[in-house]
Amino acid sequence: MGDERVLAIDIGGTKMAVGIVDPGGRVESYERAETPRVDAEGLWRLLEALLDKLPESDLVGVGVGCGGPMQWPSGEVSPLNIPGWRGFPLRARLRERYPSLPVRVHNDAVAVAVGEHWRGAGKGTANVLGMVVSTGVGGGLILGGRLIDGASGNAGHIGHIVVDPAGMPCACGGRGCLEAIARGPSLAAWAQAEGWRAEQVVATARDLAADAARGHPIAVAAMRRAGRALGIGIASATHLCDLDVVAIGGGLAQAGPLLFNSLEETFRAHARMDFARSVRVVPAALGQTAGLVGAAALVFEGDAYWHAD
Amino acid sequence: MGDERVLAIDIGGTKMAVGIVDPGGRVESYERAETPRVDAEGLWRLLEALLDKLPESDLVGVGVGCGGPMQWPSGEVSPLNIPGWRGFPLRARLRERYPSLPVRVHNDAVAVAVGEHWRGAGKGTANVLGMVVSTGVGGGLILGGRLIDGASGNAGHIGHIVVDPAGMPCACGGRGCLEAIARGPSLAAWAQAEGWRAEQVVATARDLAADAARGHPIAVAAMRRAGRALGIGIASATHLCDLDVVAIGGGLAQAGPLLFNSLEETFRAHARMDFARSVRVVPAALGQTAGLVGAAALVFEGDAYWHAD
Repeated sequence: MGDERVLAIDIGGTKMAVGIVDPGGRVESYERAETPRVDAEGLWRLLEALLDKLPESDLVGVGVGCGGPMQWPSGEVSPLNIPGWRGFPLRARLRERYPSLPVRVHNDAVAVAVGEHWRGAGKGTANVLGMVVSTGVGGGLILGGRLIDGASGNAGHIGHIVVDPAGMPCACGGRGCLEAIARGPSLAAWAQAEGWRAEQVVATARDLAADAARGHPIAVAAMRRAGRALGIGIASATHLCDLDVVAIGGGLAQAGPLLFNSLEETFRAHARMDFARSVRVVPAALGQTAGLVGAAALVFEGDAYWHAD
Repeated sequence: MGDERVLAIDIGGTKMAVGIVDPGGRVESYERAETPRVDAEGLWRLLEALLDKLPESDLVGVGVGCGGPMQWPSGEVSPLNIPGWRGFPLRARLRERYPSLPVRVHNDAVAVAVGEHWRGAGKGTANVLGMVVSTGVGGGLILGGRLIDGASGNAGHIGHIVVDPAGMPCACGGRGCLEAIARGPSLAAWAQAEGWRAEQVVATARDLAADAARGHPIAVAAMRRAGRALGIGIASATHLCDLDVVAIGGGLAQAGPLLFNSLEETFRAHARMDFARSVRVVPAALGQTAGLVGAAALVFEGDAYWHAD
């Protein structure tokens, strides 16, 4: 057992990362590249080039977190932010490359949630909501110690909990979704409309977080706006699922207290049932490698995290 | 197996019901009484008097759904609407009465959800939200074919999903909870404030549903108000949990299309992720005995519905 290793893959719109993960959740070898704007086979060739750099000894399986949506568990992926892959048979291709190993593919935010439950902020608890707040707002649910897949492998979409029914239209077609308000690009656009960096054509959430840290009042207000929306959505999830821990990762979570203070305040104002008082809402613990660690756990801890063929 | 029977108990603020349930989910013997406003021992004596009327042959266990909150799984109950029981050791008392049988106690709305999954509107699916819309708004979650208990046995509290953050204060201390808007007494009070039966000191949700069926415009508007709030809350739950079926019971659900039409319209407007399109939102199928059937399933199908000692 101690010598077993899982080859882990984390594919998003910004970067592709691959690594070798040990049973303790440590990432031993690590390679990454920016996700290029190329066609399906070009993307696959880049992934194979990264994989070629990894050692392949003691491997017991391949675990993958990939941007959604996807057909699950068959693993045909159509990541929103990777236009070159539409219905790309990622799981089948990896099975061809590693014919003797189990290959397991799940949503990238689900992989982060699994990583945080297995070796991160939710370790030792049974009911965890893991979130990624970045270009989008995604997540995954572990309840009763088991990953919740849902009817089609799509459980965990906390970004599309409704936090303001009269609020902004969402890219999903709905209105007032958490993601419509709290995703980085929406926050930056809101701040620009309020006068922050109004002269720039495009300003990013990274700029916004940096300016908030320097005390720019509109940028600070934008962080509060995100915190309030997150607090409401997390209160709803806590009442519905009776959680132990909510672990929040992704670029926006790095804003720290500027985000978490208003989040906590709004969360506590709405999560008022007795049983909700003990839930902890905390920053994710694993950082940039959470997705790789969780992808590995799909193989190492299949009883808890993999309920498909 | 065919001869096995479970003694099932359903205790709420309005009535206590007991019955014998067979493995097919049929209720064979049935006794009920109004829940009296008496002290703890008076309530227990009434329950024992009901139990004394039931046959006790072939019993393999005792299953109970009881109004919350409660300490779970130890089964000390403090039902909101039964002031005589505060920390009453219901499970321990039943174990004394039936020392050779397993005794399992869960929330009454959870029992309804379990009943609807086992033998009702959610039969044959793996991901079900069962709801009771009545004096309160309660529920239970079955995901991946298993009852979700949550950290403290309180999962399923969909009544305290936030559907309007700027909305009405809720008895829980929060604001804009689904229950604050859609519980029967709130709807009736809202309609009275709008002019419906304004001369009455108290008008009930039952009156409201009856008047809505006769076309009273304010009563109809009240049903639409409930339907919209339910549609938003159910959309959030669907996106978070990736459900197959939402089964809605309780007195208000008997209003039929007057409630379900606006519910469905609002639900479809907000539940716009591709994977949410296939979920079915339907009236509960088991009617008044759903709680007894679900309580029995806690024993008959412990692998799926009972994950405690």
